[in-house]
Amino acid sequence: MIQTMQQIATIAKMRTHINEARRQGKRIGIVPTMGFLHEGHLSLVKAAREKCDLIVMSIFVNPLQFGPNEDFERYPRNIERDREMAASAGVDLLFTPEVSEMYPKPILTNISVANVTAPLCGASRPGHFDGVATVVTKLFQIVQPDYAFFGQKDAQQVAVITQMVHDLSMPVQIVPCPIIREADGLAMSSRNVYLSQEERTQALVLSQSLKLAETWLDEGIALVEIKDRLIQKITEMPLASIDYVEILRFPNLEPVEQEVAGQAIIIALAVKFGKTRLIDNLITEIR
Amino acid sequence: MIQTMQQIATIAKMRTHINEARRQGKRIGIVPTMGFLHEGHLSLVKAAREKCDLIVMSIFVNPLQFGPNEDFERYPRNIERDREMAASAGVDLLFTPEVSEMYPKPILTNISVANVTAPLCGASRPGHFDGVATVVTKLFQIVQPDYAFFGQKDAQQVAVITQMVHDLSMPVQIVPCPIIREADGLAMSSRNVYLSQEERTQALVLSQSLKLAETWLDEGIALVEIKDRLIQKITEMPLASIDYVEILRFPNLEPVEQEVAGQAIIIALAVKFGKTRLIDNLITEIR
Repeated sequence: MIQTMQQIATIAKMRTHINEARRQGKRIGIVPTMGFLHEGHLSLVKAAREKCDLIVMSIFVNPLQFGPNEDFERYPRNIERDREMAASAGVDLLFTPEVSEMYPKPILTNISVANVTAPLCGASRPGHFDGVATVVTKLFQIVQPDYAFFGQKDAQQVAVITQMVHDLSMPVQIVPCPIIREADGLAMSSRNVYLSQEERTQALVLSQSLKLAETWLDEGIALVEIKDRLIQKITEMPLASIDYVEILRFPNLEPVEQEVAGQAIIIALAVKFGKTRLIDNLITEIR
Repeated sequence: MIQTMQQIATIAKMRTHINEARRQGKRIGIVPTMGFLHEGHLSLVKAAREKCDLIVMSIFVNPLQFGPNEDFERYPRNIERDREMAASAGVDLLFTPEVSEMYPKPILTNISVANVTAPLCGASRPGHFDGVATVVTKLFQIVQPDYAFFGQKDAQQVAVITQMVHDLSMPVQIVPCPIIREADGLAMSSRNVYLSQEERTQALVLSQSLKLAETWLDEGIALVEIKDRLIQKITEMPLASIDYVEILRFPNLEPVEQEVAGQAIIIALAVKFGKTRLIDNLITEIR
């Protein structure tokens, strides 16, 4: 297979490619990433290949979505490896702008989404989803995609972007894709590389406890009880420090007022192992 | 001349037209308005005809950009008259969505622009420019224009949108167009219809004082002195109540720290006559 992927670092050059693709009537897909690719990202490219004629992957570690005490500086980067993986997966254009290209001057424009950003990571990471909404909008303006592919591991991110796209009538269809896991169940994340061996082992409690929650739902255990059990289960791991364990309605992320069979819910976990904050979730329904 | 203008009330139908126009490689221009058209709006259409193959005019009185005590409800509307004027001026598609079409549910997404929204109308009308930035973005997403035409009477609006388009890399060129005035100098505005005859007469002080300011600049009068004279001149009108009289750098709307010849400035006025708040401005430079 001949690799024809092109790497593009400037907005101007990306526009030239996009204008040509649009003239040719191509269906454009974007897979926005922060790089350090794993199988989760590649599954998004695979999904994009089914719907699109031109696949753009962006690799941009976006400073706007990191808090002052978060891991922007040390976020893992490996552009050479990413380039090979993206090319093999079938990416056509790899967009790798520097921060100085995306934000040549301090950006004065901010996009915020209410309600759906209030709980979960929105509560733990103030400003995070403003940064996400703003950079995703900018990427959409540059790439003008017909489809955009996001992993459901970041379920709240998907909810925020879906709300924004609806509110602003953006001409793009958001395609959420399933969580991809390691063989032992750990949800794939670029941040997994931070984990020590011991943290890595204990982090399995996330996927394991979500599996248990599924059986508890089958058994008709009440949600408050399931939440307590999850907290207890995770707390058994000495290296685990819970950020949140929540069960909310999906996709609006509102509290479950009444437990109605068939109602879609998300069980969402954010837990620190050492310095590394991991998230995982299960989207399911009340039995 | 055969009138082929089409009036479109839904986002879905507008998308169909826009997709077809883009397939044909047409250059699309948008003239966003709140209707009750006057020669100022028509001058924007004229400017659009020089650059574009398809001219979309939107008429939408956007509730987001009105404060709770402002004139959203009583803002003048006359769609039949607007339709005739737009068709005669050469508009191709007249987009007239209801509020329920633009905001079927309360909109959760907000776009704000810092710095340039701080002084002038941004200070007097909290939230106004968030509403403007949000609706303009939504219109841009629906119409996907190559060019967008705005009147310089709303100079701060032009500055806000220009900043936003730059920050978010929107694929649209903002074209500011000169203020259009009545024969006696009053800047055209849909709100002029609110004025009583006496208010209308006294409102001439706005354009007259801006003319005087130009001569004072020629004479080398200091800006602080010019500002004082403007305030004095306007205050002579018994029906006038000053909201602001400001001289700022243009287009960043920052304070003039040092008076440097050749530096672009805006002299901006907002004055109430009775219940009617009028704005006017002069973009010029320090001599």
